Order: sequence, then structure tokens, then C-alpha cells
Amino acid sequence: MNASKNIPGNGVPSFGRIAGPLAQVRERIHQGLSANGADGELTPFLDHLQACGGKMLRPGLVLLAGECFGPVRPEHIQVAAMVEMIHHATLLHDDVIDEGRQRRGLPTANRLWGNESAVLLGDFVLSQVFRMAAELDPAVARILAQTAVRVCEGELRQTVQRRNWQLSESRYLEIITEKSASFFGGCCRLGAMLSHADAAQTEALARFGLLAGIAFQIADDLLDLTADEARTGKTAQSDLAKDKATLPVIHLLQAVDPPRRAALCVLLEAAPKSRREFLDTLERHGSLRYAREQAAAYVARAIQALDPVPPGEAKEALVQTARFMADRSA
Amino acid sequence: MNASKNIPGNGVPSFGRIAGPLAQVRERIHQGLSANGADGELTPFLDHLQACGGKMLRPGLVLLAGECFGPVRPEHIQVAAMVEMIHHATLLHDDVIDEGRQRRGLPTANRLWGNESAVLLGDFVLSQVFRMAAELDPAVARILAQTAVRVCEGELRQTVQRRNWQLSESRYLEIITEKSASFFGGCCRLGAMLSHADAAQTEALARFGLLAGIAFQIADDLLDLTADEARTGKTAQSDLAKDKATLPVIHLLQAVDPPRRAALCVLLEAAPKSRREFLDTLERHGSLRYAREQAAAYVARAIQALDPVPPGEAKEALVQTARFMADRSA
Repeated sequence: MNASKNIPGNGVPSFGRIAGPLAQVRERIHQGLSANGADGELTPFLDHLQACGGKMLRPGLVLLAGECFGPVRPEHIQVAAMVEMIHHATLLHDDVIDEGRQRRGLPTANRLWGNESAVLLGDFVLSQVFRMAAELDPAVARILAQTAVRVCEGELRQTVQRRNWQLSESRYLEIITEKSASFFGGCCRLGAMLSHADAAQTEALARFGLLAGIAFQIADDLLDLTADEARTGKTAQSDLAKDKATLPVIHLLQAVDPPRRAALCVLLEAAPKSRREFLDTLERHGSLRYAREQAAAYVARAIQALDPVPPGEAKEALVQTARFMADRSA
Repeated sequence: MNASKNIPGNGVPSFGRIAGPLAQVRERIHQGLSANGADGELTPFLDHLQACGGKMLRPGLVLLAGECFGPVRPEHIQVAAMVEMIHHATLLHDDVIDEGRQRRGLPTANRLWGNESAVLLGDFVLSQVFRMAAELDPAVARILAQTAVRVCEGELRQTVQRRNWQLSESRYLEIITEKSASFFGGCCRLGAMLSHADAAQTEALARFGLLAGIAFQIADDLLDLTADEARTGKTAQSDLAKDKATLPVIHLLQAVDPPRRAALCVLLEAAPKSRREFLDTLERHGSLRYAREQAAAYVARAIQALDPVPPGEAKEALVQTARFMADRSA
């Protein structure tokens, strides 16, 4: 366990200027989780939720998107806390589904307490978000809820596509847009809305978040393929284990002739030991490089989307954040 | 598969008078689930959600509690749909946790599509509830959300008590109040609130729902112990499989001397084939009868709680519903 992982925004260099508000967000999450009289029996669960610091990428985007148009307001802190809680709930459920053993350098909840507690803990976090939503302006709550629906729909759609090695690049992009990028888009939209940005500026921020989110997910899928488990602190190559086609795999299967493609599909469903060989094949065909280039292209488009936004430190921090999202080593 | 299971309110005789509004609730659930542009890919999931009819006990209570004070309003239909959706989401997750094979006479979602899709389907249903909450009066949304938080807290607390064969009757009652009865209490409270009942009447309805809910859960736990899987349409004796102490078991362990108690605890954790023997022991010590009597006593208190409510057909239907809740054969 690495104690530095518990510092909010740790690992996102462009979040230095919002370290104070991010600490408030963490405090708000803590309050949100322990509301309604949670007592000693639930303390180990709440402590675990609190210890899993994470990069606070989504709350950071809410805050920076807001700061492009004015100071951080209490509503930003509330919404930023809620988006991180929604994200955390999905991670708890993902780890049950994937039998993940570690996350953010800590043992997962399912490993500590079993699947039952981990599923219920995720539901508990979602129920607290639901409760906090009743304190928001209904227009804001509506956007947050619509974002959550899209994420869930995208996740469900992805399960339908398991073992579909014919998945096209455009369908892959649609799915990651829905299950992941739309969430980042929603965060930026909400941040701008809460600062009363005008309609064009709000749309610009939403578009920025969406495009940066696509880049993030391509990079995240790449990392799942290539990463060293000990370094990233989460279970590696879970996408291959789940027969999930991601961009490098889709590129490779397009790049080879049909008999080779059939042989690769067999390899893809084979035992983990042959996956090292598969990674070498991806490297040889330029499929990893292709995915990195696509991520970079989406970041460039994201930055361009910020054109209508007045220049300033917050905008610059958003640009840096988008670059970070597409080029993470962990 | 039994097609009659798909009729709303099937099996609750006192719901005859609200058959029309219950059909509207089902329609509202359908709209709620398919909102946000769900398309062909998700149709099998949505069809399965819709086919799992259930008894609609919680929506029925919202409607009847409301009808004690005036006609059913559109807000009743909306809230009734939401409580059933929350309930359905918890069932989807319960079936993943318990590896349930059938529910309401149909194969469970986890059996049809695996744990991943079933967890995500539950999350999807919850996200749609969250979206629908943004259309409600914030005071109503707040109560609904607080109810959901209590249910999740109670469920989590119950997992902490697994394998605790020393669990006292009063602690058992606290846990079932939180994880189950509070939901019924919330349904009745919301129904009354939406009909602008006065504070005393609203509290009376909430108390009625809570007490009837305790009776329901005692009866449900009894049914889990004694029921015939083929007849009830759900996996039987899952509580024993999960080492969950319920009222008859707590009664039995109190009724015997310490050496016998120790022997019973060994039996409780033993293989399923010895559970038939355990059931006979429960019968012999009057533990099943004790639990049935406790359920009946809570129903009597629930009915008494309705004293401040004006007499009428809706009140009479609530009384019948409470009796049904404590004395179900399925």
C-alpha cells in the first residue's frame, strides 16, 4: 500500500491549482457516505471507500470546467463529490464482475469481504448519491441522472458485444463514448452550467469532455493490455480475460488476412500464458501505436473544442488534463 | 413459466380495486426503463425486466395509502413505478449474490446472461430511477432516496452478521426493520404525502407500513426456510446457505441448552442434505409457530396504527394487504 495514493488529485499534475477544492470534495464525499447515521458496524466499509483515493479525474474536470467562468461554488463541490461517488460505485461492481484483486493499490472490497458486501456497498454509495441529488437544482440533477443512465446503457451494450471479434472500430467508439466518454462530457457540462456559462460555452465544455473522454478510454484500454499490474495497482489484461475487443485488437484483426485472423481469434480465447505472444503480435503490426495515435488525435480535437472558452489558467489546466488523460502510464 | 404471473397485482386479493392504477404503474415502469433511447440491443434485457411481474406489493401500498385521503394522482403512479424499480434492482443484485436460479417463475438474469449483465442491469434500473426522481417534488425525492439509503445500510449490516448464530431477536428485528420494513414504511408515507394527508395521518401510514413490513419480512424468512421451490418460483433456503440467522433459528437456539446449541450450530453450517433434519427440529421446538405468531402480532399492531385514518374501502384494503403480507404461502 502506497500512502501517497490517498492524496486527492495525486498523479494529475494539472490539478495542483485545485488542490484546495479537491480536498473539500473529499470531505463532502465523506459526509455524504456517513450521512443518515451510519455507525460502527459500517465503519470498515466507509474507511475502505475513503482510503481508495484515486486520481479524482471526474471531480477535477467539474471544478476546472466551472473555473473557466468564475470561482468554484458550493454546488461544484457537491456535484464533484457525486460524480466521484458514482464512479466509485461502478468500480466496486466492476471488481465483483471481473474478480479484481487490487484497485488503486489496495485489496478490492470483494477480496476483503466477498461479492455480497461489495455489490451492496456499490448500491449503498449509489443510494447516497440519489439522496444528495435531492439537494440539487432539479435541472442539474436531471443531467447528472441522464449521464448515469448513459453510462449504464453503454456498459450493458458492451456485455452484448463480448466475444464479438468482428466488432468494428466505429461501433467500439460508439460504445466507449456511451459507457465512459459521456460521463466526462457530463462532468464538464455540469461544471460550466453551475458557473452560469452561456449555452455555446457549456456545449464547448461538454464536447471537450466527451472527446477527452474518448481519448481516456482508448488509453485506458491500451493500459489494460500492456500494463504491469504491480505498477498500476489494478488487475491487468482483464479485457482479454473477458473477451472484450478494444482498439488495438480491432486494428490488428483488420490488418491481417482472413486465415491469420481466424488463428488470432483462437489465440484470443486461449489460456493466459499465450497472451504475451499476442501482445508481441500487436506490437509488430503497429496496433498499439495506432491506438496511441488515435488517442492523441481525440485529445487534439478536445483542445480545439475549447476555442469558444476565454483563455486563462483554468482553460490551460483543462488542456493539460486532456493530455494527461490520453498519455497515462498508470 | 406461468403466464398468470405477469398480471399486475396477481396474488394480492386486496389489490382488486386498484387493478387499473397498477396497470398504469406497469406502463410507467416500461416507459421509465426504455427512456433515453434504448434500442434493439437492449430489448432482451428490458423484456425480461417487464416479464418479471411480481406481486407489486410496494406500488400497491403507495396507491392504497394515497387512496385513503383522495383519488390516485399522476405522482402516485410515478412514485409507485419507482419503488417497484428499486425493488427489482435489489432482486437482480440479490440473485447474483445468492446465485439464484429462478425468481417469479422465470430464470434469473444472472442465469440467462451471467453475473456481469445482471449487476449492470440492476445498476441500469437504479440509474433510471435516479433520472425519474429529477421529475419529482424534491421533498418527495428526498424521502424516496432516504428510504433507499436505509435499505442499503440494512443489507450491508446483515452481511456483517453472517455466521453470527448469537444474533439476538432484538438485533434481528432492527436489521429487518432497516433493510426491508423501512421500505414498506416509506411507500405508505409517500402515498399519504402525495395525497396531502396531515402530519398525524402521514405518520400513521408510515407506522402501518413499517409494522406490516416487519411482519412481511418475518414471513418471508419463514417461507425461505420451509417453502417448496417448485411452488414459490424462487430458490429455497438461501438464508441457511448464506449462514443467515432468521427468527425461527434464533428462537430455537435460545430454546435449547448450550451443548445442544453447539451441536445445532455445527448442523447449521453443514451440507444441505442435513437441513431437512434441521427443519424437523425447528418444528419440534415450536420455532416455526413462534415466528408465525410474531408475524401475526406485528400485523395486529400495524392495523391498530391505522386508527387515525378515516374508514373506507382503501383503509379496508390496507388491512387485508397487511394480513396477506404476514400469511403468504408464496
